Amino acid sequence: MMDIEDDFTDFKIGVAGLGLIGGSLAKAFKRAGFCVAGFDIDKQTVDCARQEGAVDCADTQPDVLFDCDYIFVALYPDAIIDFVKKNAPNFKKGAVVVDCCGIKGHICESLYNSDLEGSFTFIGGHPMAGTEYRGYSASFAELFKGASFILTPRPAESEEVIEKLSALIKTAGFERVVVTTPKHHDRMIAFTSQLPHILACAYVMSPSCPEHSGFSAGSYRDVSRVAHITPELWSQLFIDNKEELCCEIDIMINNMKKLRDAAYAGDKNTLFELLSEARRIKDSVDK
Amino acid sequence: MMDIEDDFTDFKIGVAGLGLIGGSLAKAFKRAGFCVAGFDIDKQTVDCARQEGAVDCADTQPDVLFDCDYIFVALYPDAIIDFVKKNAPNFKKGAVVVDCCGIKGHICESLYNSDLEGSFTFIGGHPMAGTEYRGYSASFAELFKGASFILTPRPAESEEVIEKLSALIKTAGFERVVVTTPKHHDRMIAFTSQLPHILACAYVMSPSCPEHSGFSAGSYRDVSRVAHITPELWSQLFIDNKEELCCEIDIMINNMKKLRDAAYAGDKNTLFELLSEARRIKDSVDK
Repeated sequence: MMDIEDDFTDFKIGVAGLGLIGGSLAKAFKRAGFCVAGFDIDKQTVDCARQEGAVDCADTQPDVLFDCDYIFVALYPDAIIDFVKKNAPNFKKGAVVVDCCGIKGHICESLYNSDLEGSFTFIGGHPMAGTEYRGYSASFAELFKGASFILTPRPAESEEVIEKLSALIKTAGFERVVVTTPKHHDRMIAFTSQLPHILACAYVMSPSCPEHSGFSAGSYRDVSRVAHITPELWSQLFIDNKEELCCEIDIMINNMKKLRDAAYAGDKNTLFELLSEARRIKDSVDK
Repeated sequence: MMDIEDDFTDFKIGVAGLGLIGGSLAKAFKRAGFCVAGFDIDKQTVDCARQEGAVDCADTQPDVLFDCDYIFVALYPDAIIDFVKKNAPNFKKGAVVVDCCGIKGHICESLYNSDLEGSFTFIGGHPMAGTEYRGYSASFAELFKGASFILTPRPAESEEVIEKLSALIKTAGFERVVVTTPKHHDRMIAFTSQLPHILACAYVMSPSCPEHSGFSAGSYRDVSRVAHITPELWSQLFIDNKEELCCEIDIMINNMKKLRDAAYAGDKNTLFELLSEARRIKDSVDK
């Protein structure tokens, strides 16, 4: 990693969309000592972020971001492409614009192949953190502690740009920056993030769920947690990544059926072997 | 709740099986000020529990429990019935013997219908707490903090016995004692505990799992946690409750398919409605 301490002093960071992710990014970069500008269409959010000191300046118009060296776009998936295209001519010369959407294929394909005006660099990104809550009021500077930030740049992107961006990202608390392709990102996210959200929602739909109180402990809590979902956001994310997601759902259902059939048949040997395999995988993967 | 403070002073509590649950019960009751006796077939466990002061006395023979007023049986499911039947003639007159097995139908049916020797009371029980670790070394006094202890007594069981036992149980940190039938217990546990273990194991069997590092956060961690499973114990628990468990697995698969099909069809309205339903359930159940 290059030594970038001196280079950072005068950077101005912009955040578009001050929800859970954008609000937390603003707070984290502010805490790291940067000058931070925030844009959100909601006036109350803008006022609140300003009053709390989460940003140095904020507005309901994107103009507030036009002198920023780095801009993190934490808008809803379907708003990101329009936002970047529309404001492209106005971004600062040499600026790096990174989106924060949970699915990368669609956005990167569109923006890497667009003939964008201006002379900035767009890089696909995904901060791997979140909670089951939403909006600026749920944001906090420590959200990214220990998390990964995934970047899916063009294959030809300059190493220097990636290194400098990575170093900047780490000042917000991220433990590591992972660079990969949009396609590999989307397959992994289908498994690590989208499938657990499908499971949580399918789980709480059981007729047993409303009666769980008094009969549940950590297992119920952990599986059901993200059923506190934002339907508008996740229905879009699921559809944007439906091929990879449905593939993971099918694998999951198939594995559940193996376990189910062994239990139903009272076949303790097979069940023991399947559970032992799961245990071996879990132990070897998360040792 | 009756006032039982005075009555408790001279009670001696026995714990059979000093694993995660039994070891934690011993430590919790010891901390609450009781005299605690422990039995485990493993000499090292017995020595360790004694040295650590988790028990006042311990042995690899069950005789150490025969002067106890309350005995918690935290053995493997298939050992519990034999243990109670074999030692029945030796339990202290008037003693209350409670098992700690995660499935109640099989054990309660067998022991409530047995013509047991001696003059003690057997009550089916299930402390609703645990971790993904096992054995005495994983036990700790705070395991039950905020948890439920479920009791599935005979319908004709004396209220006084249940009240006194419940008060005792709460001294170990349990927040509430739930009294229900073995059948209702087993259905609820199929949903709240067994199904999440099936999900965790099926989940980590995905070919994507070994690659998750760098692409995962809280969702992966929560769903996969209990894949660190004890195959011997859980294969038995699953088979002992296979009717209820398979019913919950089938409901779960059906709900997953609804979500999958809506995503695959790109049917955002249906997907939005399904996710909204899940969100409503989660919010209303865990408000």
